[in-house]
Amino acid sequence: MSLTLAIYQGPPVQGDPEAGLERLARQLSAAAMAGARMLVAPELFLPGYNRPDLHGQLAQPQGGAWCQRLSDMARAAGCGLTVGWAERDGDRVYNAATAFDRDGAVLGHYRKMQLFGPMEAASFSPGDSYCTFELDGIPTGLMICYDVEFAAHVCALAEKGAKLLLVPTANPAGFEHVSTTFVPARAAECDLTVAYANFCGAEEGLTFGGRSLIAGPDAQVIAAAGRTETLLITQIGPDPADWLRSTQMQDFRKV
Amino acid sequence: MSLTLAIYQGPPVQGDPEAGLERLARQLSAAAMAGARMLVAPELFLPGYNRPDLHGQLAQPQGGAWCQRLSDMARAAGCGLTVGWAERDGDRVYNAATAFDRDGAVLGHYRKMQLFGPMEAASFSPGDSYCTFELDGIPTGLMICYDVEFAAHVCALAEKGAKLLLVPTANPAGFEHVSTTFVPARAAECDLTVAYANFCGAEEGLTFGGRSLIAGPDAQVIAAAGRTETLLITQIGPDPADWLRSTQMQDFRKV
Repeated sequence: MSLTLAIYQGPPVQGDPEAGLERLARQLSAAAMAGARMLVAPELFLPGYNRPDLHGQLAQPQGGAWCQRLSDMARAAGCGLTVGWAERDGDRVYNAATAFDRDGAVLGHYRKMQLFGPMEAASFSPGDSYCTFELDGIPTGLMICYDVEFAAHVCALAEKGAKLLLVPTANPAGFEHVSTTFVPARAAECDLTVAYANFCGAEEGLTFGGRSLIAGPDAQVIAAAGRTETLLITQIGPDPADWLRSTQMQDFRKV
Repeated sequence: MSLTLAIYQGPPVQGDPEAGLERLARQLSAAAMAGARMLVAPELFLPGYNRPDLHGQLAQPQGGAWCQRLSDMARAAGCGLTVGWAERDGDRVYNAATAFDRDGAVLGHYRKMQLFGPMEAASFSPGDSYCTFELDGIPTGLMICYDVEFAAHVCALAEKGAKLLLVPTANPAGFEHVSTTFVPARAAECDLTVAYANFCGAEEGLTFGGRSLIAGPDAQVIAAAGRTETLLITQIGPDPADWLRSTQMQDFRKV
């Protein structure tokens, strides 16, 4: 497999979704110009992660105004877009993410299963199913933040055939080991590539840790950000499994 | 200080400078769209690093066709460009790099002082002077590849006031410690930010190590690439010296 993939690590929208969407559209166009086929943006980019005051109030349905806008942005840029947003479905609100392809069509929609801490538990209902789809022929999975810390969840997607895992996140400062240790570990354990897209900056007193990264199945970093606003555009492949084959470990693994 | 800086890590032009320039122009436009004020590209991007057969044959003077083209690219994109190329000056050929601002004007021109190995010694004459300039008000230095491995050279630029160091490079696979250890060490030793832009891929049997990166004065990675084609666009600052001040080590250093 081979794919040019992008991560946008940016600050929260700070109560101004329109400004945030314009910023995201610019980054998406930049990623497209550099050859990216998919850009991954953070968790709950709309309306904000640490904004429990807004989650229920602003949450929108699938196919609503936010989805339409995100779909339009992907089609206009000619680049896929995976981003987190608060979804309303009747009485329930989900911490959700949608992957749009570069024509603006929905590739996959996911509701976070592994809610983290009391704020999320108060704002959201947990999802109950995994999400996989094909991205340019690559079997791909979609998770959100805390989900990826559980090896069992990532293994479940790998067993469904996923070779690429897209993960919008909102990981606070102090938890950088999730980026630097857990994400590469998950990639190597499950023989897939993981793209983990975090916020930088702060929101209502919560400081995010940045350190968005893409890690390959050899646990090596393919591209990584620090603590500031960063756009990463990088080619994954030609085949992350090449490393595994080159070590002649593949047969060993089958034992 | 605060600046959005980009690194383009790409494959060599493989004897096709025109295709290489078109590729570089596309990456420069993408960087500009994401807000970059300067993009750093590899050493001897024109006509190629491991092409001693072409160095003397194709080398051009300052202000020649290559410089004009690179200047036009910077102005068209609205983004500065720092890139390495083979310079002819009479009988001599230099391993040179030029920094153009976003209006296409020359900010600085540098000739590599610390030539590496027999190939470079056969192709090039060494430069004899440091290069510093202001980039959006930030005192900036320009070096090439092996130069940065010498603490004395980087200290000399720091003593001239440099807070940012741009380094086109052509670092082979097997020497990744230059990126991962030397570059952060130089940044921390001299209280500046270093942007180190390498090739990926191979050229005439020489495989490059990739791992381009930007490291801050706290020796931390601000953005990093792996081994594949990658565009990094990231905000440095607001002030890399903040970390130093925050540790209250600055007074200690003055002792």
